[in-house]
Amino acid sequence: MTKTPVCVLGLGLVGGSVMRAATVAGREVFGYNRSVEGVQSARFDGFDATEDLDDALARAADSEALIVLAVPAPALPILLGHIRDSTPGSPLTDVTSVKGAVLADVKSFGLQARFVGGHPMTGTARSGWAAGDARLFVGAPWVVTVDDDVDPEIFTEVVSLALDCGAVVVPARSDEHDAAAANISHLPHLLAEALAVTAGEVPLASPLAAGSFRDATRVAATSPELVRAMCEANAEHLLPALDRTIELLGHARSTLAAKGSVAELADAGHAARTRYDSFPRHEIAGILIGADGWREELAAAGRAGGVIRSALPGPDSRG
Amino acid sequence: MTKTPVCVLGLGLVGGSVMRAATVAGREVFGYNRSVEGVQSARFDGFDATEDLDDALARAADSEALIVLAVPAPALPILLGHIRDSTPGSPLTDVTSVKGAVLADVKSFGLQARFVGGHPMTGTARSGWAAGDARLFVGAPWVVTVDDDVDPEIFTEVVSLALDCGAVVVPARSDEHDAAAANISHLPHLLAEALAVTAGEVPLASPLAAGSFRDATRVAATSPELVRAMCEANAEHLLPALDRTIELLGHARSTLAAKGSVAELADAGHAARTRYDSFPRHEIAGILIGADGWREELAAAGRAGGVIRSALPGPDSRG
Repeated sequence: MTKTPVCVLGLGLVGGSVMRAATVAGREVFGYNRSVEGVQSARFDGFDATEDLDDALARAADSEALIVLAVPAPALPILLGHIRDSTPGSPLTDVTSVKGAVLADVKSFGLQARFVGGHPMTGTARSGWAAGDARLFVGAPWVVTVDDDVDPEIFTEVVSLALDCGAVVVPARSDEHDAAAANISHLPHLLAEALAVTAGEVPLASPLAAGSFRDATRVAATSPELVRAMCEANAEHLLPALDRTIELLGHARSTLAAKGSVAELADAGHAARTRYDSFPRHEIAGILIGADGWREELAAAGRAGGVIRSALPGPDSRG
Repeated sequence: MTKTPVCVLGLGLVGGSVMRAATVAGREVFGYNRSVEGVQSARFDGFDATEDLDDALARAADSEALIVLAVPAPALPILLGHIRDSTPGSPLTDVTSVKGAVLADVKSFGLQARFVGGHPMTGTARSGWAAGDARLFVGAPWVVTVDDDVDPEIFTEVVSLALDCGAVVVPARSDEHDAAAANISHLPHLLAEALAVTAGEVPLASPLAAGSFRDATRVAATSPELVRAMCEANAEHLLPALDRTIELLGHARSTLAAKGSVAELADAGHAARTRYDSFPRHEIAGILIGADGWREELAAAGRAGGVIRSALPGPDSRG
């Protein structure tokens, strides 16, 4: 069976890595990048890239390619307008970090029936085509969304691409993904920023700070623009996470002042971290893509630690 | 010149490492440990250890050894009582983490005239004699205190031990050390605990959490008893650090809710982290130990990033 071609829009770290990984997996892959430099670099490395968006989309429509949105969030609306006008039926996915914001953009262009969101949860501090790596996704969780509108065949296509790239797929609803990301990714950035500022105001802190402080503030070295982009796009879910953390710290502050004790927070934090370390993971089986309630079943399985490591049976299965 | 012998009281991770490192440096080293197991392990490895405290202290008095307090804080008062009664003049230092608390204990036994505090800022997650390592201190900052009572000759002895162990010495007042430790060590523990608890309450967070979350909550795996011991002993300095962090997070929460922006915190955190990365360090020179104002000069030099890498000229210098 011939694999679906892939059209990658945006050839930065993630898009460029998808282009490389899908090529290694034996797919036909072509891509578009806004900057000529990125296109030239990709071509120099032997890949099929253009800076002409309409060309790339015409080819995607002709070859019935899966289109992968891999541009920064602010560039999405312009792309989606072209996609609506030039590719009447092409299936769509994305590889960006806040799924609710992308889904809202997709819906505003009426494209939700052919869109299934994705988020490979990996990366490096570098960016651009040169930072890409065919093995970036190997072993990493790649969220594929199971919102109410999701089409079984397109879901299967997106899962297949993620598996081809070496990732393990975690099925999740967009809002649950974003709530989790607020807690495991965006909140840690704000805590690191606050720690860096607090310690920076104490004279002897910098001379004495060593490895553990450097680790704890490492993500504060991320560019403020990038921190703002991810935190602000996910404000709806980040606010309750911030509230809860401030509440926990405030309570510890009170017990430390009144009773000289931080026992509650120390015990609860240790217990939570221990649970995290022993969180059970398993391979999802026995769910037929497209059958009644398949999206809810997959969302529940993902929440319980289930991952997809090989294609699930679907509507076209003859097995 | 013969080096001062060293009597290490407590042969866990830090004390056991001091015993090994000082031995490698060519010193006579002997030690005491409360548990027979620790003593037997140290002897098995060829070191001179006893579980008889009075024997160890009698030998320290006879050989004019530098006594190193390397026991957990709750065990200090008992040791200090024995030291006061059995070793009339032996110089004292310690290797524990909250300098104000140790100094208060030392003063309550009237021993401050022969005490100079110390804190090697290194460690591992493991504990006990077997976890010790002669190279634990190589390149690490080792704070040596310059409080008002500090004697120039004993200060020089303690610096000499730290340098023999391969550390770089940062001179600091006990209260300034503790304020710094609250910010760079104790506050990060509470932030990691709060993050672990907050994320642990969100269904999809554990399945999706990967490397960066694991790093950010790593210290939440520390035993709650140890976290309590260090945070609670340093409450005086930890409270204002907690207050400042809660204030910064609360302000970010407000601007995110009202204006959709975390720009202030993201910019300030990035700037603080950048300053930390480029904090200038230099070797302290030109201060004569024991001369007028030497303690204040060393404290100021430490604050400005100065470290001692080789013995400074002192009262006995002939150079």
